[in-house]
Amino acid sequence: MPNSTERLGRAARRSDRLKVKIEMLPTLRRNIPLTEPMNEEQIEKMDDASLSILEEVGVEFHDPIALEHWKEAGASVEGERVRFDRGLIRELIKSIPESITMHARDPEKSLEIGGNNSIFVPMTGAPFLTDLENKRRMPTLDDLANFHKLSHMLPAIHSSAHHIVEPMDHAISHRHLRITYSSMKHSDKTFMGMTSSGKNAEDVIEMCKILFGEKFIDTHPVVTGNINGNSPLVWDQTMLSALRVFSAHNQPVLCSPFVLGGANTPASVAPTVAQVNAEALSALAYTQVIRKGAPAIYGHYLATVSMQSGAPMAGTPEISLMNFMIGQMARHYKVPWRSSNTLGGSKVFDAQSGYESASTMMAVLLSGANYIWHSAGWNEAGMHCSMAKFVVDAEQCEMGYRMAEGVRWDDFEEGLAAIRDVGPGGHYLGHQHTMENFQRAFFMPKLFDNNSVEQWQADGSKDTIQRGLEGAKKLLEDYQEPKLDQAKDEELLDYIAKRETTIPKMEALNQEH
Amino acid sequence: MPNSTERLGRAARRSDRLKVKIEMLPTLRRNIPLTEPMNEEQIEKMDDASLSILEEVGVEFHDPIALEHWKEAGASVEGERVRFDRGLIRELIKSIPESITMHARDPEKSLEIGGNNSIFVPMTGAPFLTDLENKRRMPTLDDLANFHKLSHMLPAIHSSAHHIVEPMDHAISHRHLRITYSSMKHSDKTFMGMTSSGKNAEDVIEMCKILFGEKFIDTHPVVTGNINGNSPLVWDQTMLSALRVFSAHNQPVLCSPFVLGGANTPASVAPTVAQVNAEALSALAYTQVIRKGAPAIYGHYLATVSMQSGAPMAGTPEISLMNFMIGQMARHYKVPWRSSNTLGGSKVFDAQSGYESASTMMAVLLSGANYIWHSAGWNEAGMHCSMAKFVVDAEQCEMGYRMAEGVRWDDFEEGLAAIRDVGPGGHYLGHQHTMENFQRAFFMPKLFDNNSVEQWQADGSKDTIQRGLEGAKKLLEDYQEPKLDQAKDEELLDYIAKRETTIPKMEALNQEH
Repeated sequence: MPNSTERLGRAARRSDRLKVKIEMLPTLRRNIPLTEPMNEEQIEKMDDASLSILEEVGVEFHDPIALEHWKEAGASVEGERVRFDRGLIRELIKSIPESITMHARDPEKSLEIGGNNSIFVPMTGAPFLTDLENKRRMPTLDDLANFHKLSHMLPAIHSSAHHIVEPMDHAISHRHLRITYSSMKHSDKTFMGMTSSGKNAEDVIEMCKILFGEKFIDTHPVVTGNINGNSPLVWDQTMLSALRVFSAHNQPVLCSPFVLGGANTPASVAPTVAQVNAEALSALAYTQVIRKGAPAIYGHYLATVSMQSGAPMAGTPEISLMNFMIGQMARHYKVPWRSSNTLGGSKVFDAQSGYESASTMMAVLLSGANYIWHSAGWNEAGMHCSMAKFVVDAEQCEMGYRMAEGVRWDDFEEGLAAIRDVGPGGHYLGHQHTMENFQRAFFMPKLFDNNSVEQWQADGSKDTIQRGLEGAKKLLEDYQEPKLDQAKDEELLDYIAKRETTIPKMEALNQEH
Repeated sequence: MPNSTERLGRAARRSDRLKVKIEMLPTLRRNIPLTEPMNEEQIEKMDDASLSILEEVGVEFHDPIALEHWKEAGASVEGERVRFDRGLIRELIKSIPESITMHARDPEKSLEIGGNNSIFVPMTGAPFLTDLENKRRMPTLDDLANFHKLSHMLPAIHSSAHHIVEPMDHAISHRHLRITYSSMKHSDKTFMGMTSSGKNAEDVIEMCKILFGEKFIDTHPVVTGNINGNSPLVWDQTMLSALRVFSAHNQPVLCSPFVLGGANTPASVAPTVAQVNAEALSALAYTQVIRKGAPAIYGHYLATVSMQSGAPMAGTPEISLMNFMIGQMARHYKVPWRSSNTLGGSKVFDAQSGYESASTMMAVLLSGANYIWHSAGWNEAGMHCSMAKFVVDAEQCEMGYRMAEGVRWDDFEEGLAAIRDVGPGGHYLGHQHTMENFQRAFFMPKLFDNNSVEQWQADGSKDTIQRGLEGAKKLLEDYQEPKLDQAKDEELLDYIAKRETTIPKMEALNQEH
């Protein structure tokens, strides 16, 4: 696809980049054992339970086109209720690719998803932000651009995603165009596309055609879209229309039951997993009805609900257990899967945020999630994205990345030789092995302060919020735009201008998690 | 051991207790798969490397009695350097019991350590605290009593430990007596004993004889002591003297190399584990020289060092990996093992604290630690214990406990029946299965706020520190002392009074981690 002008442009950008040294970590290739609480028999039991739900209870598709598709595909359709023979589901999901290569504007930033390969994607969908002055307020398109710039610069963040915050200064009906352009313009990493309607999804695909070429995207995934389910067991027209657009164009959707455990699922871990699994399978199967062989991702948004307040909770033990189990099911079906990282319900970026985020990250890494969404910024149950938390989470992703790469053995003998050299009572700081290895040996988080209290006070007694905000400001100062090819940039802007004259302005809210 | 007066006393206390309902969770019986990054061959390689270190490099024992013991036991002793034939180490550690029953003052609070059984023990050794007004200051004996009271009341905390904070208002040379008495008096859970010298350890044992009976403790472990190693490969006289007292009396010591990864170990994960393993084995073996069959615990304190500042770090990826690996080694030798929970370097109880603590807890639970020390309150690299963090950490332990218990399958069919009942688009909140199960289905942390921002503001916009402090104050208001048998109480106080007249007053500091 890239022509020679673009290749030249890229080479120039690459030399620019050397100045500030923005390096994205490649796809994480996990090399630690996963936490798998189910044995083979329990996996079979879970599979059987989910397929029985699909056969006997069925799923509602609130969408006449989907119902027609399911009739043609051989499912039993009564009103909006679709019941699926287990053979039909198994047959359909078989053609979902086991892994996906996501192509980025900079081909060096293309990624593998599936199997042992995982990527970190920032949070999206926040109607508020806490900004660089730690104020909670409505976001603008400029705020969104800042998050896309940070995503571009943070090494463990693999995607600029889409509406990290909602650009409230733009009409809801035009917003998807500006969001997509911002993702494309401010970062050359892979990104996500809006699925807020079938029409909006079409606009995303049209813009991807401009950026990557029509023929290219038909055979190369370049954008992911999220499809939320209305648990229990319902998919709605908005989501299904968007799914059809993405799948028809060979772009992967995340088939994500939206779980508020205890409210829209049974009040128990294993039965909840059975329901989520049934829901995910029904949407995954539908992607293959639309286009056999199209990539698709097993997904979910997973909260448990406080039975005292009705509020969604994060980082709870049951969410960890469900992540472990759902990962096993996705691997059982050999489908890449998405989970959510660094979730939390705190209103401020305090200790609660830290506990919730870290518990979630450990569980998600050890459950083997491939598409690790909401990996930076999420706070207040997704109601705001925090600038400070965004960069701190991203550093935690670097740390999670390092842990998930597993143990190095290549310098074991050298290390043992150092032990012999140093001997009892010695120290290693001046030893040659230490000098040669310390840079990569032990991760040193820049945004955490581990100094003495005296040194910390001398440095201004800063807490994590202050250090995070300083880190974010510094990154934004150093930001250098990975320039779009000028012709493509103009074509994108022309497309947006044209669409903004044809789409009626609407100000209503539409949120997605 | 308990006589009829004491039995009556206990019954009375139990009926008292019903009023406030203090319930300790029993020993955690883990039922999740552990994270084991080494295969059999790598475990053998690690074992071989550690035994080679012990054979070829050896360990220094800065203690003439220990050197004499090692000569008698057949080790090669040159100066203070002891080298061990691998057969000798293997033979000695064979007699360490695979599991330990720790007997508490209230027999219902006795615990199992080893195999799948784990317990949570609060932090100890802090020279400062942040108090109920969130002020950092020197601790007193009253502050220590408050931490012992909280330990008594918090359900997932299994021990009142010992000097959670240093009672600075008492002379260092008398302090161990007051600390031990406070542990015994304010809680009827198991506890730890001071190992700050051999003589101090003897006092602890004498006081345990008063509380439990001399014959009883010779066959029943009632107190644990920590023995820190001076990595690399040194054990000092203070620690070895205390080890001898505990082991001779059949009380378990934690044999804990004190690791500042990169400073006193090689700058690499696997070689560091080889060194730690060698160090732990040498002390474990020595416990069996003192008393064959005495219980002992494989331990370590594990930090990595920032090569920029020299500061110890917590919650880093390499610490998680080392925990996973060391757990495998301890299980390889069939010895119960201790790790450290909820560590962190933050000066305040902020997001950094939360991330570090939660990352550590997940790693420690999934590495299968049995004696999970420093489970509440640790902040500022152990320089202060935080009242707010103490209760929040303890609630996190409840959550970790729940996760580590694994998945319930006993209501799977009922849950599936609920899915059938509710059907697509319904909700579960009013369903009978939900009503019957919600209490135990999904953990609801009391100290986290998951409400809407409006509700949170109406409730006073409290962060985790404020909620933690309110939680701690409420617990202390509700505290009811589990009264000591009056005769034993008097005997303990007499012993302390007698010792305080014979031990010269010394004000110097001596810290232990």
